[in-house]
Amino acid sequence: MTATDPVTVMKQEVGKAAAALVKSGTIVGLGTGSTTAYAIEYIGDRLKSGEIKDIVGIPTSFQAEVLAKKYGIPLTTLDAVEHIDIAIDGADEVDPQKNLIKGGGAAHTREKVVDSLANQFVVVVDSGKLVDKLGSSFLLPVEVIPMALAPVMRAIEKLGGKPELRMGVKKAGPVVTDQGNLVIDVKFDFIDNPAELEKTLNNIPGVLENGLFVGVADIVLVGEVKDGQPTVRQM
Amino acid sequence: MTATDPVTVMKQEVGKAAAALVKSGTIVGLGTGSTTAYAIEYIGDRLKSGEIKDIVGIPTSFQAEVLAKKYGIPLTTLDAVEHIDIAIDGADEVDPQKNLIKGGGAAHTREKVVDSLANQFVVVVDSGKLVDKLGSSFLLPVEVIPMALAPVMRAIEKLGGKPELRMGVKKAGPVVTDQGNLVIDVKFDFIDNPAELEKTLNNIPGVLENGLFVGVADIVLVGEVKDGQPTVRQM
Repeated sequence: MTATDPVTVMKQEVGKAAAALVKSGTIVGLGTGSTTAYAIEYIGDRLKSGEIKDIVGIPTSFQAEVLAKKYGIPLTTLDAVEHIDIAIDGADEVDPQKNLIKGGGAAHTREKVVDSLANQFVVVVDSGKLVDKLGSSFLLPVEVIPMALAPVMRAIEKLGGKPELRMGVKKAGPVVTDQGNLVIDVKFDFIDNPAELEKTLNNIPGVLENGLFVGVADIVLVGEVKDGQPTVRQM
Repeated sequence: MTATDPVTVMKQEVGKAAAALVKSGTIVGLGTGSTTAYAIEYIGDRLKSGEIKDIVGIPTSFQAEVLAKKYGIPLTTLDAVEHIDIAIDGADEVDPQKNLIKGGGAAHTREKVVDSLANQFVVVVDSGKLVDKLGSSFLLPVEVIPMALAPVMRAIEKLGGKPELRMGVKKAGPVVTDQGNLVIDVKFDFIDNPAELEKTLNNIPGVLENGLFVGVADIVLVGEVKDGQPTVRQM
């Protein structure tokens, strides 16, 4: 790679910093998204160069699976392992308590399954994703089974949210998740208690999972471009 | 129908009593199970005889859909209605507070979506389903996406449950739900706080819905055979 534009270089540097945390002989959760994609590539590079060995990956999406195969990372499934040592994944918003909103890629259900199992969950973001309060700039994704779409949207309205069915691009009609479900993006004016909202949403009949990740992240690596120079810091 | 064995006659009587609650011009949630099947049949009879008219049904499963078509009840979907007037459905356990365990037919997710929307939710059971405490005799069903099976089983064990993957009959391998997911049946020694357990289970990543129905049922119709005579009473 010979990227020169600062934003791409910054994403690469964040991915590299995350990949550097992966140790030999570990089980690694492989996340979804553009920055995470660089982390997967660099893990592959480290394997190829012999710097680390005996890594096995657990993908959080078809995207992660394809990239892991491309960069030579052996894969397994959750049935075959008892734990995950480290997971690397992106986020759409990060608050000062390291709580997250995820799901821009409609992969948040599988991501939450994998990321919440990891002994160490490393989040890779650019500084634009940092917010004082979750829901400030990003809509909250909620994955729902198709037959429950209408009642779940009404239940979300009763909670004070403005729900919107996520529509496909390069696909007529709605986005369909890797599990065959739909995604409702919800505008909440403010999310005061993410832990409670996460549970309340998951308890609406027909909801599979929502994009709130509360108390899951351990390390947040933040990339930023300052004076045209890419930097990476730990939050 | 000319059933003569008392248990079948009792189920028919319970179904008939539930069907009698359906009024003209209403939207009716159609549940799943052997007693509910009689209710669907009697609703069809009442439509055919002209005793009631302008009914539209919302099925909770493929089974309910097939029976509704067989007995001439017009169907619609949740997208087309704003509310449900009455839902009729079975249960595997009923406690004195009218809280339920459902899911013996692996249809509890769609059932919960429909039943919890109904202004009036009528439960039809035989007296063998009445328990002092939920979980006494019936395992609690939890619907889970296939990739999350192993970690969800471990999470349930941490909560003190004994999980068991429901296996198919007339189908190799596990039961697959109408949504394409798996069912874990869980033995809890006692369920002291069903409302809390319902939320806790639904918040495990990868869980779609569990069989606890807390605060949903309005009327419970109980069939019983006494001295060889079928009776129906309201709990």
